[in-house]
Amino acid sequence: MLISPDFMRRIAGVAAREALPRFRLPGLVSNKLVSGFDPVTEADRETEKAIRALIRAEFPEHGILGEEFGAEGADARHIWVVDPIDGTRSFISGIPLWGTLVGLKQDGDAIAGMVAQPFIGELFYATGEGTHYEGPHGKARLSTRATTDLSEATLCTTTPSIFEPERRAAFDRLERQVRLSRYGTDCYAYCMLAAGQIDLVVEAGLQPYDIVALIPIIEQAGGMVTDWDGGPAEGGGGIIAAANSTLHARALAVLQGG
Amino acid sequence: MLISPDFMRRIAGVAAREALPRFRLPGLVSNKLVSGFDPVTEADRETEKAIRALIRAEFPEHGILGEEFGAEGADARHIWVVDPIDGTRSFISGIPLWGTLVGLKQDGDAIAGMVAQPFIGELFYATGEGTHYEGPHGKARLSTRATTDLSEATLCTTTPSIFEPERRAAFDRLERQVRLSRYGTDCYAYCMLAAGQIDLVVEAGLQPYDIVALIPIIEQAGGMVTDWDGGPAEGGGGIIAAANSTLHARALAVLQGG
Repeated sequence: MLISPDFMRRIAGVAAREALPRFRLPGLVSNKLVSGFDPVTEADRETEKAIRALIRAEFPEHGILGEEFGAEGADARHIWVVDPIDGTRSFISGIPLWGTLVGLKQDGDAIAGMVAQPFIGELFYATGEGTHYEGPHGKARLSTRATTDLSEATLCTTTPSIFEPERRAAFDRLERQVRLSRYGTDCYAYCMLAAGQIDLVVEAGLQPYDIVALIPIIEQAGGMVTDWDGGPAEGGGGIIAAANSTLHARALAVLQGG
Repeated sequence: MLISPDFMRRIAGVAAREALPRFRLPGLVSNKLVSGFDPVTEADRETEKAIRALIRAEFPEHGILGEEFGAEGADARHIWVVDPIDGTRSFISGIPLWGTLVGLKQDGDAIAGMVAQPFIGELFYATGEGTHYEGPHGKARLSTRATTDLSEATLCTTTPSIFEPERRAAFDRLERQVRLSRYGTDCYAYCMLAAGQIDLVVEAGLQPYDIVALIPIIEQAGGMVTDWDGGPAEGGGGIIAAANSTLHARALAVLQGG
């Protein structure tokens, strides 16, 4: 099924209304693990609530899986997967690389997705007809780069500390072969991959809501994304996203010990 | 001497005119080390040229030190220090955490500075009367946080790989004591420190043009910035910036082996 760009823009509007006003509050810190009032958790919950309401009104027969409020209609053919604020650590550090992620699965496959970064005013989305961008300086259709040599690739990850020891060794091996690596990127790295600005994203320990929205954005721009075994990425876990299938195969071989 | 906010805005205008159009060019990579046409070097050079022209016209008796074109009038009492694009690796990865940095030294002390991030449309500046912010969602006066315990602090650095082994051990020691660390931040981290969003920035191997513009932005917001010996930061090298003097002393003690 095709989702309209306008529906993606309406979700981005929710992010601008609910998450953005809580960004860069003076002295903001997250007390999620302590207790009491937490503006980050509040931003997460209010954003997800409003997005769920939009989805329910437009697609009452669909299911929803969200970070904050779990699953509803889990046996539906179509499941929306929502991460109201991906990149909470960026969010609480004032760094505008967080995003509101909403993806749609059909029979288990991610077929549409969007990332909204409301502080900058950016929207990345794929609804079955390519990957599109709307930002402060214009609109564009996105496509990945043609880089096929690891020695010419730019690699991103959120932080090497996300990897447990065995995977850390594999990541380090890959990092030594690429031209440039960048950290601290969260969901934004996958958007830059789709935009032809970087070539690889490698992470681990992701939840489905961290990745489902990003899969169509990467694939419909020409990229490839799987788990570390080369299987579907929809389940999260270890993720490898690449600008094209050749580069994906080469990076995967290095991660797998090649 | 006092520099007008309007002059800082005119420099930001140069960044928007010269650096921004070369950001996110399709498939952009820097060939600085290879040969031939390099849009990043071109953006660097054209931005610095235009900034030098602005400074010469407004302050003909002042000296200028820039990353691309070196020093002129190096014995003047007032020296402008220019980094046309700080965060080149962010720039070539499509990530909008790079900035155009311009600072002013008087008798060796940094007294005014600005960071422009023209993609987002942000300007951070300090001209002797506090630290100010202008961005897509409004203007603000900035002040640092009151965090004094390392265990509650957020620490940023561009990447742990900037530290040679002895300093890396010191950084790792500090990182283990803080609440949260974030990588990949370049000049943007110092701006977030001034904005009360994070508490510490620790780096090494900086050039004077990487830090001079940032010193007044940090200090006039209430923060403290020195080298790893606790001396003036204007010379670059190892840098530690903190939200306040108490936190600075505690972090410095850890770095120095305490």
